[in-house]
Order: sequence, then structure tokens, then C-alpha cells
Amino acid sequence: MSEELTGVLQAVRQRVEPTDAERERLDRAATEVIDRAEAALEEQGIDGDVMLVGSTARNTWIAGDRDVDVFVRFPPDTERQRLESVGLEIGHAVLPDDHEEYAEHPYVVGEVDGYDVDLVPCYDVEDATAIQSAVDRTPFHTEYLRTRLDDDLADDVRLCKAFLKGIGVYGSDLRTRGFSGYLTELLVLEHDGFRSLIEAAAEWHPPVRFDPETHGTATFDDELVVIDPTDPERNVAAALSTANLARFQHYARELLAEPRGSLFDPSEPEPLDPVAVRAAFDERGTTPVALTFETPALVEDDLYPQLEKSLDGVGGLLDRHGFDVLRSAAFADERAVLLFELEVAQRPAIERHVGPPVHVREHADGFYEKYADTDVYGPFVSDDRYVVERERAYRTAAELLESDALFDVALGTDVESALKTDHTVLIGPAVGTLAETFGRELAGYLDPKP
Amino acid sequence: MSEELTGVLQAVRQRVEPTDAERERLDRAATEVIDRAEAALEEQGIDGDVMLVGSTARNTWIAGDRDVDVFVRFPPDTERQRLESVGLEIGHAVLPDDHEEYAEHPYVVGEVDGYDVDLVPCYDVEDATAIQSAVDRTPFHTEYLRTRLDDDLADDVRLCKAFLKGIGVYGSDLRTRGFSGYLTELLVLEHDGFRSLIEAAAEWHPPVRFDPETHGTATFDDELVVIDPTDPERNVAAALSTANLARFQHYARELLAEPRGSLFDPSEPEPLDPVAVRAAFDERGTTPVALTFETPALVEDDLYPQLEKSLDGVGGLLDRHGFDVLRSAAFADERAVLLFELEVAQRPAIERHVGPPVHVREHADGFYEKYADTDVYGPFVSDDRYVVERERAYRTAAELLESDALFDVALGTDVESALKTDHTVLIGPAVGTLAETFGRELAGYLDPKP
Repeated sequence: MSEELTGVLQAVRQRVEPTDAERERLDRAATEVIDRAEAALEEQGIDGDVMLVGSTARNTWIAGDRDVDVFVRFPPDTERQRLESVGLEIGHAVLPDDHEEYAEHPYVVGEVDGYDVDLVPCYDVEDATAIQSAVDRTPFHTEYLRTRLDDDLADDVRLCKAFLKGIGVYGSDLRTRGFSGYLTELLVLEHDGFRSLIEAAAEWHPPVRFDPETHGTATFDDELVVIDPTDPERNVAAALSTANLARFQHYARELLAEPRGSLFDPSEPEPLDPVAVRAAFDERGTTPVALTFETPALVEDDLYPQLEKSLDGVGGLLDRHGFDVLRSAAFADERAVLLFELEVAQRPAIERHVGPPVHVREHADGFYEKYADTDVYGPFVSDDRYVVERERAYRTAAELLESDALFDVALGTDVESALKTDHTVLIGPAVGTLAETFGRELAGYLDPKP
Repeated sequence: MSEELTGVLQAVRQRVEPTDAERERLDRAATEVIDRAEAALEEQGIDGDVMLVGSTARNTWIAGDRDVDVFVRFPPDTERQRLESVGLEIGHAVLPDDHEEYAEHPYVVGEVDGYDVDLVPCYDVEDATAIQSAVDRTPFHTEYLRTRLDDDLADDVRLCKAFLKGIGVYGSDLRTRGFSGYLTELLVLEHDGFRSLIEAAAEWHPPVRFDPETHGTATFDDELVVIDPTDPERNVAAALSTANLARFQHYARELLAEPRGSLFDPSEPEPLDPVAVRAAFDERGTTPVALTFETPALVEDDLYPQLEKSLDGVGGLLDRHGFDVLRSAAFADERAVLLFELEVAQRPAIERHVGPPVHVREHADGFYEKYADTDVYGPFVSDDRYVVERERAYRTAAELLESDALFDVALGTDVESALKTDHTVLIGPAVGTLAETFGRELAGYLDPKP
């Protein structure tokens, strides 16, 4: 078994290790960007420096990766506005085919020799606890790891990244909510290799806490806590979801029990067509219902949390009205979809409405008088309370979702605006049409893997 | 308003008060029974006595009542078996058209001059705490009240009984679970009249406790506690249900707010026919489902608690399988019926089955291996747990009730036997046929009053 794992890891290691030619090419490209940026900085008369960061700087990039991150560090007393405007100027001067993107502040993205280069301005602060902007931390991470990751560990970081990509939990963006590159590096370093990390993870009992520099000061509610070696108050694993941690544990056990290279290959299901989607829901005997609307123009890190929040809000609304939700999912392309799969899509004409205890006279009298001469069933007495069976406001899930009640629940701000502008409710077989855009997502939904 | 109430009470008082002729007739009948019983006792050579008990003895019977209770008291050292056999002999000797009935021990019931006479043997114990049989208490109740209820209070007891009958909560049998005659008398006595009892009851905040002799020693969980003046350890109101106490409070307020004689007249709804029953459930949009079976040969005090227990057991079963019960009821004639009105009568082909947390490896591995190569959906990860969507055992309420799962729940013993011998499941429109026997009960169910 152990032999078998060794063989699998050896094969993957070869696949993910960049060739010498690849390394040289990347070095050339990076050096060129750094040189240009240093010249631009000097031209602007700024006493800063330029630094290669990220996996390319740490020798932990996977063969085929095409991302180069270069940071331009400004003196900490630079005004924010000046940092932003000069940062962009330098970016435009250095990078061809460039455009601006925006995280905590704007930066420039372009292409050099086939590499996607991010050129990000930041402050050159004393240490990572003194940061003025979230990106200021990155150079410290690079410094910390460069001295600690030898070639063997760098190999294992690559293995681990390939594994996390293979099982779909790599990336700390708020769509994925998985493992960041830095988190991966720290975990491999902490466990002195991929294999021992995997062996440990198979047995973790969250909450699990690591503090490489034993300097952590804060406590965290997260299931996995890795205190940032450069900042005692930060959990590097804060973005990791509970489910992705559980997936990591599941696949760690899988890899140990049945070592196979396929666990390192991301696999996407074949898309389903509308007919197949209808047939699948039919076989499950459930009622799918979907809200579709124009996707708000947001970066993924803003969009997906809003979709999740909206999914919870609308799911709760359906549940509260008796339309029991079995499972739900959100998809986004040009239009976004909130999909709910219902166990119950229709309720009776009436609903039980329980009033106050009869002996609490003030409330009881008010309740009784409110309903006594209406066409409800009752009021009658059940246990110590008045009860009526009154007309139900929404007999079907479609009626509920087409009503204004949709806007009484917590929705993402921009999702709410988009829904108000225009939305469509699809129910039952009509949901099949979503396969025209989301055939792959629906295939994944209907054949769920760990 | 107060004037109006006075007028209503005056009219009811006249209606429920026996005429002089009626009193004389009852006296004659009672005296005849007592004389005959005393002679029979002497003939048996037993040093006992004979006593008129109950409402006829306390002058609290309502005009038209035809019940006479006569107790034959045996010395306390009489063997139980002898008391029973001699008690029956005397009964048969005294009463024409007689038959035996059975409570804690057997007694004889017969008819004398148009009155239904119970002739009950009991022990002539020192005081009510020394009873050897539950019926031994009754003579003490009669003694206690005879000296305390004057003619005015006896009038008010009659009013109160008429009111309790009118609103359907008179009788401490386990079908009604209402107010016994003795409880009614104690409450009227405690409040010095019907009107002040009603005024007090309108404002009660249960639990309410009365202890006329301030000698109570035990504590009770009941909502209404009236310590027996002849037995400090007994709550006279123990059989009263929470709902019937609430009903009493409700109608007390009604009587004060809008005094009317109709509250003293029991009213039964007009029976519905099968077509009307079907139409009524249709309008409610619910699915009625009924279990019918041969009614076990039990006295009502045994039958109804068993029906209630079975109703709870089967109702819980339906709820647990997702067939949400809106309301339920039990009826009995030659056949008995457990009726459940469902909000949901059908579920999908699958059900969500949540497994252990992934990190609890021993359980998690077992769960995963159990399902990994089966045709369930999943296992997949949700939060920190494995989940599968597996085939549901019962998709419809009818399938569930026709299965052996019916016998996994708590049922009344004799109900369980009867169901095992033979039962029928009616669903939807088929429930209408129940109106052939239970048209009145269904009318009451479908137009519920406080």
C-alpha cells in the first residue's frame, strides 16, 4: 500500500514539476518585469522597491502555471491616493496589453511572454502587523517561506496543490472557500511534507490549530486555524469552509486507502441536456423550482457570498411556508440561478394558526374576537390555546416566489436589486431549460460527489 | 348586562329544578330500593347499612335525571370476595330487570319505577383516607356536602351542571374528561354560588388550587386542583383535561359578556352525508386518511384512553415520515376510526439521510463504505457531515399505514390486537363513507367550536 502511494506520488511529482526550460523562461519574464518596474519607480522619483512574490518567487508553482505576481513597494508615508495613481501609472508603463482590476485598491494586469502578470502597489511596512492595506502582507509571506521551503518541500507543496486542485478545494476566493497557496505551503512546512500532512489530516478532529511561530494571541471559531507566522492575530485558514475541510479529510483517507493519480486530476462531469435534467428530477420525485435573474456586475468574491446569502434567505422562506427544501444551489453566468429542490411544492387551502392560551385573557379575547365572525375554521380550543384554521396565503411554491414575500427575507444587496428589476420563476419541467447554460453544473448537482 | 344575566339564570333555574311531584316520585323509588336492600342485608345476616348517595341524595339532580345511586356498606373486615358475591346477590334480589356491570368491582344495575338504579357494595370505613376500594369514598362525599349545600346552593349546583352539560364538559369519565358532579358541587360551594364561580373562572390563571379544608398534603401537576375535603391526598379535578378547563373559562366569559340560555343547552350538529364530507375536505385542500377496525369490547373508560393513545402513536408515525398531520380525531361505534387529516400525503422517491461528521473517522468510514457502491445519491459532504439521498421507504401515507411500521408505535393494547386482526385504510374521497355511521362526529370535526 505504502509502495503504491510512493509510486503515485512520484508520477504526480514529475507531472507537476516545471522543466528547466520552463523555469528559465519564467525567470526571464519575471526579471524583465522587475527591471522595467524598477526603472519606472526611479523615473517617478520614489524610494521604493520591486519584489517577486507568490508561488513563482517561492518555487512552488505547478508546471503549466502562467501567473507572475510582482509587488511595487512604496514608502509607508506615501499618501494612499498617490500610491494608487502612481501604482497604476507604473503598471501601465511596464505591462503590455494591460487593464486595471480592483481588490482593496486598483492594480494593473497584463501579459508578458505568455505570462499573466499582476503588478500590485503596496506599502513597504516594518512588519506584517503594521500593514496599511491587505496586500502589504504578501511580501512578508514570501520572505518567511523563501528561507524555509527547501527544494524537497517545494516539491511537496506542488504535490499538495495538485491534490487540492484535483479534489476541487484549492483557492481561498469566496466562490471556492478552499485552501490558499500560502495556507498550503504552511501546512506542508508544518508537517514536513505532503505525505505526513495527508496522514495527519486523515485523523484530524476539528477544531485543529497550528501556530508555527507559537505567537498566536487571538482565538478563532474556525474549524482549522493556522496562525500566520508573520501576524499573530490572523488565521490563514479563515476563508476555508467546513465542508471543504471535511472534503480534504475524506480525500486524504481515499488517497491513503487507494492511492491513485486521478485524485490529482480535476474532473468535471459531462453536461446534461434539458431532457436528461427533467428525467433526473422526475426519477427523484421532487419538484425543482428556480429563480433566474440578470447576474449583478460584481467580482466573484462579492457575487458568490451574495448568492449564498440569497440562497439561505429564500430557502428559509420556502421552508417556513411548508415547501420543504431538500437541497439548493446557485449558478451564475450572464444570468444567475437560485435553484431549490422541493420535497413539497403544494400545501392545503388552510393552515393551522395557534393563538394565545385561553387563560391569558387580554390576548385570548383579542384573538377570539378577531376570528370569531370570520370564515376561518374555529376558533376552537386545543390544549390550553385557541386555534384557527385559516386560509393559507401561498398554496404553491411558485405563488410564494412570485409574491412580494420574496423581498422580506435577507438577500444579497445586488441580488435583491437584480431580482426587483426582473426575475423569472421556473418550476418543475421548465427547470430543464437551465441545462442550456448550466448543463455541467446541473450534472454535478444531480450526481453529487464528496 | 348583569340584569340580563340574572334573567337568563332565573329562566334556566326554573327549567332545571325538579317539580314537587318529581321529587316525591324519586323519594318513593329511592325509599323502596333502600328498604328492599336493608331487608336483603338483614337476610344475609350482615351488620351493614344502606345509603342513598350522589346527586339525588344531595338534592343537586337536574329535572329529568333518572339516576339513583344506592350504596350497601359492609363491615371493613369483610373479605373482598364475600363483599363482591353478597353485593351481587343483594343487587339481584333488590332490582328488577337487572344486569351486572363492573368498575373496580362488580355491581348491579336495574330499573325501579322508571329510574336507573345502581346498587353498589362498598366498605364502611372510618374515614375517606382508609378506603379499601375507590367507591368507599362516595358516602363521605355525600356526608360532607349534605350538611353544607343549602337549598340556594343546591339550585346553583343545578345551574352549573346544566351549564357544563350545555358546553359539553360535564362528566369525569375518560371519554369526556370534564367536571364530575362532586367537583361541580365543591366549586359552587367554594365560590358561594354559580355566578361568582363563573366570574372567578373567567379570570383564572392555571394552575388554580382550592383546598376547602386547608388540609392538602400532596402537590399535583394538574391545571385545576381541588383537594378532596374528605381526603387530603386526592385532587378531585384530576380527570379534567387542559382543553376542557380552557373551554370552561371561554364559556364563562361568553356567559358574562352575552348572557343567553342556549349556553345551557347541549347542541349537536346536524350529521353530514358522504357527499358533504368529501366536499368539505375538498374545500380544505387536505387529504383525510382513516384507519378503521372492529371496536374492542371495552367500557368507555378503557376504550377512549386507548383510542387517544393510538391516535398519538399513529399521528407521530405519520409526522415522522413527512405526512404532516393537520388535525386528528377518534370515533367509535361497532367499528372504530382513527382519522388523520394530512397537509402532505405524498413525498419524493428519495429522502435526505444525514450521516456522521467526516472527522469522526470510525463512524464516518462505516457510513461511507455502506453507501459508496450503492445506487443512492452521494455520499456527499454537507457542512462537516456525509449525506446521502436514498430511496424513501414510504412515498404515500397509505403505503405507510398499510405497512408493518404501524405496529412499531405505541398503540392501546386492545386497539393493537383489533388492528392486527383486521383493518381498513381509507384515503381521500373514500373517507366520505364514514359519514354513514359518523355523520354527526364528522360534522363536529369539520366545524369545530371552542
